[in-house]
Amino acid sequence: MPSIPLVTLTTDFGLADPFVGVMKGVIAGIAPEARVIDLTHDVPPQDVAHAARVLADNAAFFPPGTIHLAVVDPGVGSGRRPLCLAAKGQFFVGPDNGIFSAFLPPDQAVTIAPGRLGPRPLSRTFHGRDLFAPAAARIALGDDIMELGEPTADLASIELSRATREGDLFRARVIAADRFGNLMTDLSISEVPPGRPLVIRVRGREILGLAEYYALGAPGEPIALVNSTGRLEIAVAHGSAAETLGAGPGTEVLVYLK
Amino acid sequence: MPSIPLVTLTTDFGLADPFVGVMKGVIAGIAPEARVIDLTHDVPPQDVAHAARVLADNAAFFPPGTIHLAVVDPGVGSGRRPLCLAAKGQFFVGPDNGIFSAFLPPDQAVTIAPGRLGPRPLSRTFHGRDLFAPAAARIALGDDIMELGEPTADLASIELSRATREGDLFRARVIAADRFGNLMTDLSISEVPPGRPLVIRVRGREILGLAEYYALGAPGEPIALVNSTGRLEIAVAHGSAAETLGAGPGTEVLVYLK
Amino acid sequence: MPSIPLVTLTTDFGLADPFVGVMKGVIAGIAPEARVIDLTHDVPPQDVAHAARVLADNAAFFPPGTIHLAVVDPGVGSGRRPLCLAAKGQFFVGPDNGIFSAFLPPDQAVTIAPGRLGPRPLSRTFHGRDLFAPAAARIALGDDIMELGEPTADLASIELSRATREGDLFRARVIAADRFGNLMTDLSISEVPPGRPLVIRVRGREILGLAEYYALGAPGEPIALVNSTGRLEIAVAHGSAAETLGAGPGTEVLVYLK
Repeated sequence: MPSIPLVTLTTDFGLADPFVGVMKGVIAGIAPEARVIDLTHDVPPQDVAHAARVLADNAAFFPPGTIHLAVVDPGVGSGRRPLCLAAKGQFFVGPDNGIFSAFLPPDQAVTIAPGRLGPRPLSRTFHGRDLFAPAAARIALGDDIMELGEPTADLASIELSRATREGDLFRARVIAADRFGNLMTDLSISEVPPGRPLVIRVRGREILGLAEYYALGAPGEPIALVNSTGRLEIAVAHGSAAETLGAGPGTEVLVYLK
Repeated sequence: MPSIPLVTLTTDFGLADPFVGVMKGVIAGIAPEARVIDLTHDVPPQDVAHAARVLADNAAFFPPGTIHLAVVDPGVGSGRRPLCLAAKGQFFVGPDNGIFSAFLPPDQAVTIAPGRLGPRPLSRTFHGRDLFAPAAARIALGDDIMELGEPTADLASIELSRATREGDLFRARVIAADRFGNLMTDLSISEVPPGRPLVIRVRGREILGLAEYYALGAPGEPIALVNSTGRLEIAVAHGSAAETLGAGPGTEVLVYLK
Repeated sequence: MPSIPLVTLTTDFGLADPFVGVMKGVIAGIAPEARVIDLTHDVPPQDVAHAARVLADNAAFFPPGTIHLAVVDPGVGSGRRPLCLAAKGQFFVGPDNGIFSAFLPPDQAVTIAPGRLGPRPLSRTFHGRDLFAPAAARIALGDDIMELGEPTADLASIELSRATREGDLFRARVIAADRFGNLMTDLSISEVPPGRPLVIRVRGREILGLAEYYALGAPGEPIALVNSTGRLEIAVAHGSAAETLGAGPGTEVLVYLK
């Protein structure tokens, strides 16, 4: 646990409505010392896989003991279990729907028992405010997660998109476009044998080899490079690869080892 | 006053411009210990009633002593009074235009005297930065609000939208659609006698009874439920009620007691 | 240095992706006490001049010792120098591409030596996370900026848009439209001799004199006033000057002294 407890938030709530602010108010009421960092609130509505991938790629950049609170929760109010997990030196709080797939199996897992969070009203539609934020705040106060509920197992898991290999060919897919129109794929460069030239095909265009950085691209020409999470990325220097190629999440990207 | 003072921000400034960041800089310069939480900055431009409703619904989720700074202020620079209020164990700082209607009459109210905030320049167009942020920061430092100006009364008030009742019929209206397309109405469920079946009519569709949570709806079928602020809400599971029904703020919703 | 170190962020990363959150995580891991304030993340992609203007207009509203971290960085990964500057009692961390033009020449300037930031991986595409955030955090911890790299000079500079004068005529341009449709120009009112009546021409409309505040305008009629950063601004009370006039960044605004 760091000296100042750190809570991150990952939701599909957006920032136009007061949902995120209210969750922070609840945390501040229980654990006034905790710092809260927004990872993203623009997960596409109810896209659990998107949130799972954001957490998978980014949790390790936060200090040990960080509490990752994630609420993309189409099953709110139903029987899906509310979870607290300890894994990889950090904590994870959210619904049992696969959002923490990259961190399974955890070192510890409990189903949160609302009664352990004190005498709080529990709405049927906003467990981010009424259940997950209080649980994260209790961890921030130093509570052992085993105090927050009952040990649990057999957690829900989802398959995160991942490139497949057939001999010298990797079949990858675009999994996200960022604000610059850079296309992130599901191919981790760690799976590609080093030292062999690559040819990348996307939307009928052929890209030879990996560029070291964005500015190396000729204007309008797509390049491939390794992005900051270790994934293959397609970019256009001073432009948008998404627009130039008419590509987006789901677009196939073929990578040949020569 | 909590050990760490808490300031919330509610504005129509958006986040693309640096206005909100600058307000936080001014607060940090005066009250470095204060924590600032964004409630929302996406109030539709100059829509005081929208901001008033957001505060009415959400202030109580913040701890006692929280300072709610709200700036939706079409009259900035004119004669409208700048206010500090104490009400319901919290503080409210902003223009006298009805934005704090849900908290009237307050326990204490002062018109802020800019001269009490120290030798600061006062622009005619950005009192959020030059007047309200410094006043909120002074309260965060522990100043009594009576020190910030002169006692005042006869505060501006606006009527918040509220369903009306005619016998067994409630005439409600949609007051906001959230990011998921859920339609929040102006009917507080506390006004509806418990134990009687409800029939809800909206845009020619009929909904029988209240669902307990979102996931109970059949795909594409509108359901009604009680949302997290105690209001009647129309939703479509795994979809958008706003799109499915072609509804939005202002749409009539009729609720019959059977 | 304030008792609680303050870091501001100005980027073109947007808030939909987790880039900004990850930078905050890195800062929290190194300097847990530091407070981070978002100035804006909606700089148009790769628009260094826009970010330079935002910093020029707003840095002075933050307390002495504030660390301004700015990442609009089309040259990331290339040979462009990563900088830490001390100027005007504050610190500036970011790429050497003119983004800090308003603060040149600085009192001190170093090219950040990544090796001085400890054993950290350095990606080629996200120096905001791997290099600038750690450097800012080290300054927040109290490190002397001279410890972070080697002294440097001949910093890149860009010309910020600025109205020109020809006798009694100022030729100005709109440099930004805010969320309300107010049009900010590149004419600082401090350059205009006081006491002489002004006539402003924009998109074929003529505006006589300066209004004191927004609410003075007749509905639909453009007015001119001095905005909160001391610039001439064109507004429409209860409306959008950008829409009413069909104007935006680049639109010419002529100001005559009568």
